[in-house]
Amino acid sequence: MRKLINAPDDFVDEYLAGILAAHPGALRAVSGDGRALARADAPVPGRVGIVTGGGSGHLPVFLGYVGRGLATAAAVGNVFSAQSGDAAEAAVRAADSGAGVLCLYGNYTGDRLNFDLACDLAADDGITTRTVRFTDDAASAPPERAAERRGVAGLFFGYKCAGAAAERGDPLDAVTAIAARTNAATRSAGVGLAPTIIPATGRPTFTLEPGEMEIGIGIHGEPGIRRGPLQPADAVADQLLDTVAPELDLARGDRVAVLVNGLGATSREELYILFRRVAARLGDLGVGVHRTWVGEYATSMEMAGASLSLLKLDDELAGLLDAPASSPFFREGP
Amino acid sequence: MRKLINAPDDFVDEYLAGILAAHPGALRAVSGDGRALARADAPVPGRVGIVTGGGSGHLPVFLGYVGRGLATAAAVGNVFSAQSGDAAEAAVRAADSGAGVLCLYGNYTGDRLNFDLACDLAADDGITTRTVRFTDDAASAPPERAAERRGVAGLFFGYKCAGAAAERGDPLDAVTAIAARTNAATRSAGVGLAPTIIPATGRPTFTLEPGEMEIGIGIHGEPGIRRGPLQPADAVADQLLDTVAPELDLARGDRVAVLVNGLGATSREELYILFRRVAARLGDLGVGVHRTWVGEYATSMEMAGASLSLLKLDDELAGLLDAPASSPFFREGP
Repeated sequence: MRKLINAPDDFVDEYLAGILAAHPGALRAVSGDGRALARADAPVPGRVGIVTGGGSGHLPVFLGYVGRGLATAAAVGNVFSAQSGDAAEAAVRAADSGAGVLCLYGNYTGDRLNFDLACDLAADDGITTRTVRFTDDAASAPPERAAERRGVAGLFFGYKCAGAAAERGDPLDAVTAIAARTNAATRSAGVGLAPTIIPATGRPTFTLEPGEMEIGIGIHGEPGIRRGPLQPADAVADQLLDTVAPELDLARGDRVAVLVNGLGATSREELYILFRRVAARLGDLGVGVHRTWVGEYATSMEMAGASLSLLKLDDELAGLLDAPASSPFFREGP
Repeated sequence: MRKLINAPDDFVDEYLAGILAAHPGALRAVSGDGRALARADAPVPGRVGIVTGGGSGHLPVFLGYVGRGLATAAAVGNVFSAQSGDAAEAAVRAADSGAGVLCLYGNYTGDRLNFDLACDLAADDGITTRTVRFTDDAASAPPERAAERRGVAGLFFGYKCAGAAAERGDPLDAVTAIAARTNAATRSAGVGLAPTIIPATGRPTFTLEPGEMEIGIGIHGEPGIRRGPLQPADAVADQLLDTVAPELDLARGDRVAVLVNGLGATSREELYILFRRVAARLGDLGVGVHRTWVGEYATSMEMAGASLSLLKLDDELAGLLDAPASSPFFREGP
């Protein structure tokens, strides 16, 4: 394992300790085991809370999006393992100001079970919750089974839009509707070039022969839709765009937000080369790019590869994307 | 090569095109070949210009630090190759508002030759220039030959402090003094776990056996000071700290800024594990941590490894570090 770690079983607690030490005053632990963390000022009076979480190994997802104009609290699991029910419940309780809590996370079975459990327990104490699970990975199931799709980097758009809606004071059902609308208008697809190694097992998340790539691969190594020889960046960008764009019914004059996300080991230079092609293709279609993010927004530790996420915008979502936000990992606007 | 690229010879021009496309209104090309770029609003009236540059393959270094409160323009070379004299000259001319230009870059022979040439040519047209070369890599030469040391991630502190000084209106000699003082108070050291592959040659920058690490390795694969079996993260952090701290004469009550920088393929989780140990050690020494940055601030494409940079602070440098700054790659404060 080419990893800078201590005992593999300490990986999660040690990186969490590092985050708390590096950013004092930004976050605080809200459970005894330290696996639920919230904005230092949570709950925010009069504001809907947004709770997220899931397995570790994806920074800045999930904890990196806990901040102003983003999520309120996060529950953190072991590497690629769901957060515990206890952590999920602690996060929900910490986020609730009385205005209710939206649970916003990727569509994975374990995450769902434990967040649902947490919501049931919170309801017993009068905390109102809603849930939106991101299902943006267009390659993870066909359109007729879109509800089964996994959530990947497009969740970034969910944090940004729902977080801005909560920050401006929207009530729970409105924040929920914004999150659901963002998910419905987001599609993602990834390409994998090399796996990551899971610290506790020393095993790779998938195997590829040297010189191969896999289109549609999941961020935990879930099988994709096409495996073959590595192609030039423009051809890869085309395949990602042709996976995500058709379902968005993009027409001349439409506007999108673009996220070209690095999965860990792929350089920022390469991500910009991919974006260059995506921008040219969107230009040919007459589709405007409202905003672009290029970098590591949802990773799989040292996995090599990238993903493309598009969010088809209306005026309200565009405004929410542009709203200020800040966490130790992400800052937008003033 | 596990890279998402097109023709290797197009790598630089294509990633630059991607950056310009992704961030319209932030940057503009100021040379015919597109290898010199400046803040869109350069030159900034009444303000000292700051020019940087060097070889490609280190994003966000160098171009990512062109922005408000940072550098004014950058000259971009091929991968791991110095910027041309022409690009350096174009960057200097674009940055000059009449208040003079500070050339601020890492201490590498080719970069130096071409920036010096550019300064000579600019002087013929009455542009006043100064130069500060960062020499923060404590592992690259012994203390008695500190002027020969290479510049690495600590250059980030240089951009931040000198950029803030220029933004507040300091004259050229004062901005230069700030940059020189920042360099004098900064020490860095890196650890390499796996090399990057140079696109144009397909060759790795260095070779390590599986399970080996090299302390003090340069960001282009320059030899370090110690090679051996990969050790636990805490032991690696200790070796990095013990390389950089002694020359800073840290005493109880001193304050530092800390940068734990990922070289490309090393996960953010691992960087925080390193920081956790660094913070504990500094705490034991009674040294306060004023600010911390953990992430990819100076990379070597997909190289695996990390570096630690410490800046010993005085009140003025601390204030300059805290000043607002923004580029497409870096944002600090309002």
